[in-house]
Order: sequence, then C-alpha cells, then structure tokens
Amino acid sequence: MNSYEKIKQAQERLKTSLCVGIDPDFSKIPSIFPKNAKGIEEFSLKIIDATKDISPTYKINFAFFEYFGSKGIAALENIISYIPDTTFTIADAKRSDIGNSSKFYADSILKNYNFDSITVNPLMGKDSLEPFFEYNDKMIFLLAITSNKGANDFLKIKNNNRELFQTIIEKAKKWYPHLNLGFVVGATQIEEFKLARIQAPNNYFLIPGVGAQGGNISELQKYGLSPSIINVSRDILFASTQIDFAEKARIKAIEYSNLF
Amino acid sequence: MNSYEKIKQAQERLKTSLCVGIDPDFSKIPSIFPKNAKGIEEFSLKIIDATKDISPTYKINFAFFEYFGSKGIAALENIISYIPDTTFTIADAKRSDIGNSSKFYADSILKNYNFDSITVNPLMGKDSLEPFFEYNDKMIFLLAITSNKGANDFLKIKNNNRELFQTIIEKAKKWYPHLNLGFVVGATQIEEFKLARIQAPNNYFLIPGVGAQGGNISELQKYGLSPSIINVSRDILFASTQIDFAEKARIKAIEYSNLF
Repeated sequence: MNSYEKIKQAQERLKTSLCVGIDPDFSKIPSIFPKNAKGIEEFSLKIIDATKDISPTYKINFAFFEYFGSKGIAALENIISYIPDTTFTIADAKRSDIGNSSKFYADSILKNYNFDSITVNPLMGKDSLEPFFEYNDKMIFLLAITSNKGANDFLKIKNNNRELFQTIIEKAKKWYPHLNLGFVVGATQIEEFKLARIQAPNNYFLIPGVGAQGGNISELQKYGLSPSIINVSRDILFASTQIDFAEKARIKAIEYSNLF
Repeated sequence: MNSYEKIKQAQERLKTSLCVGIDPDFSKIPSIFPKNAKGIEEFSLKIIDATKDISPTYKINFAFFEYFGSKGIAALENIISYIPDTTFTIADAKRSDIGNSSKFYADSILKNYNFDSITVNPLMGKDSLEPFFEYNDKMIFLLAITSNKGANDFLKIKNNNRELFQTIIEKAKKWYPHLNLGFVVGATQIEEFKLARIQAPNNYFLIPGVGAQGGNISELQKYGLSPSIINVSRDILFASTQIDFAEKARIKAIEYSNLF
C-alpha cells in the first residue's frame, strides 16, 4: 500500500492525528531499565504496547539509538519490526547528502528498514532529494520551518519577500508534485504555519513542538491543521518515571488523541 | 590533543592536504569481497593499510555503512579503531537536529566514536549547532557551499547581496569564533570558494568534489587553498577493481598527495 493511503487509513481508523515520538533518552527513562541499548529498547517496546491502539503513527528519533552505536541500531531494528503493520512509521533522521550517498541513505531507511517515511534536510537542493523522491510509494517530509529558536537564523531569511522556508516549499512542490511530499512545520511557528498552509493546503505537515516545547495546536487550527501528523514525545514518554510509566503514557496519549 | 593541532601536525608530517574518503559502495568494491557489511569493512581496512603513511586524514561516509544497519555500524566501529591515532578522522554524517537530539548526535560521534571532527548541516540554526560547538577540542565542519548542482537551489539564494552560504559563514564565525570551526566548500564552486575564503581566510575548508566530480584544484589555488583538507574518494578507492586494487589505490593517493 502507498504510505499516503496508509497514513490516511490509520488516522481515520483511530480518529486522531497524534504521533507518539519515540525519543528514548537513556538519562530520562524509568530507573527499572538499564541505561544502555537494551534499556531504551525495552522501554520503547513498553511504550508501543501501551499506545499502539491509540496512536496511528510512531516517529523514531535516530539520535537516541545512534548514541549506542551498533547495539543502538540493533535496538532500533527490533523496534521497527515490533510496530504493527497498520501503523505508519516515520524515520526522524533528517538526512542530507549528495548523489550516491543520498541514495544509500534512502535505500537504508526506506527499503532495508522499510519505514513508511523519512525526514530529510533540503539544504543541498534538488539532486540531494531525488533519491528519496524515487521512493514514490513512501512519504518524504522536508524540513520547512522547525520548532526551535534557531529556525530564525536561516529558514526565515528573506529573498524577494519570501522567506527561505517558503522557497523550500515552493521549489519542492515543483520538483515533486505529489501528495507523498510532506513538510516539517513546527507548532511554535504560528505565522509561518499560516503561510506554509496557504502554499501547501493538501500536503501533510509533520508538526513537532507540541507539549514540552510549548506549541499551541488550537492556534494552528485556525489556519487549517489537516492533513497533519502531530508529534508528542516527552509529555507522553516521560509522563511518569515510576513503575506506572506505561499506564501514565497511555493516559497522556489518550488525552492528546482527543485534542487533535 | 586538540583536533586542530592534530590536523596541522598530520598534514605537516605527511606534507599534503589530501584526505582519503572512505566511501565503500558495496556495488563498486572488487569482487573478491562479499557484498555485505564484512565486505565493505575488509575493503576499507585494505585501503587504509595501503594509504595510511600517505594520507593525514580519512573521511568516513556514514551512508555506506548505515545501509547495512547494525552490522554496517559494527563495521564502521571496527574501522574507526583501526585508523592510526595520529591520523585525523572526519565523520561525514551531515547531521542536523535540535536541542537534545543534536546533543545525542554530537555525543555519539565526538565522544563515543571519538572522531576528531564531524560534518554538520547548519540549516536549523544556532541552537542546533551548539551541542557540537561544545566539543571545543574537536573540529566542526559546517556545510557552506556543496559540490553538487543542487547547491544552486538554496545555498546561493541572495539576501542583501549575500548568498545564503555567505550568511552561514558569517553567522557561524560570530557564534563560534574559533579555528576549530571549518566549512565544507566544494571544489566545483570556484567563484563561491573565492568569496568564502575572503570571509574565512584562516578556517579549514573541507573540500570535496575533486576527481570523479570534476573539481579543479589549480583554479582554487589562486584564491588561497590553505588551510584545507582535500577529499578524494572514488578516484582512489576504485582505481582498480581487480586484485591489485590496493596497490593502484596507493599509487593514486601518492599522485594526489603530490598535487596538493
């Protein structure tokens, strides 16, 4: 099944745009887990068990796995194969490179790991993105306007009255006129969200920055939230650091799933 | 030892700015090696054996290892520990993320793997780079102007008569006024190289694009090549795909080491 159909069906089935972000920071997981690759794997599997009938989507943040080298990647591989087939998966890897290297990153994540989608950094331009676009049954989320303060430094630089993130959206839509193209748009960026939605009314937005980062979804709703995938990581994962962490994560996920 | 001192000493000792790029594309390695993680590891170790008394620097391209998942990363770990201590190492990973994720990428590569340096994609701005800058005994190479055609798409966008790559250099030098800051400047970008060198006369440039990509070093020499690290991958690695590949790689590496 095309990943675009898969995300639509998963969201319709579970009636929410929630995405649970698997960001297993070893320093924050409950103390019942060892602070190593096995520990973050076991913690992540428990979180998936507690939320898989609620969340249509998981976003896996590669940084927390790469920290543990080959053992961390083995943990990531186990987690991928544990996620139910009907759940949409996002590799939050923010890869960027040229030509052949870019192709190997695309093959690694979209073919070998068989993720439904990946986040990609578009800075190096069209030919750096093409190996990802070639997977036209997958979804590709380009960074457009990120949720952090540093988004002001380059992504909002103006040229001909367009900020850089607008040029990214404009060019990417020309290069890949396909609804399998999505954009990362931070929930903390209200004005930019509005502009991005005008440019791309039908493309999925992957929205980080809700919860711990302070983004406000009700503000975004005014400007056309849908279609979107709204990620919450820390607020769910670390709702409790005690033995009841899975139960508390489930309660938080239900709360969020009712909000958007 | 600070990595900046290390690269200077290594280049003085071997009297060249050459960097051998470890890009072990499994589809291109000699057929005596299996087309798997072990195959690219063994091939890379032979290339290192054949060039370690010639090249002061190795750049390891993560894409070709990540392709093989945890086994590929185990191969990468073995290669890192095989490279001589006096040789300068570059993790060509082009990482980019925010806050905590960025810190985990930095810790993974600069602490756990103990690379001397890393390539970083600066698109997400200052706070995305700070976890890397905190490793102030390492070198951080920010993408400035890459060697591919797609560099025209965003990196040359103008604002106030400055192209984006110039703004990247300008801001980064303010954020991290330190010679441990370097920039990736493609050998195919003559005019941009000249402008970048005017902005950053004393910072190391990591220069890809020589050899297979067609970059011309004699052109760049007019504008101040030094200090720089000039990467050659395919022309050395795949100088022969027969049993004499290591010998031919050594001959090519010697040729290049005499050129710059």
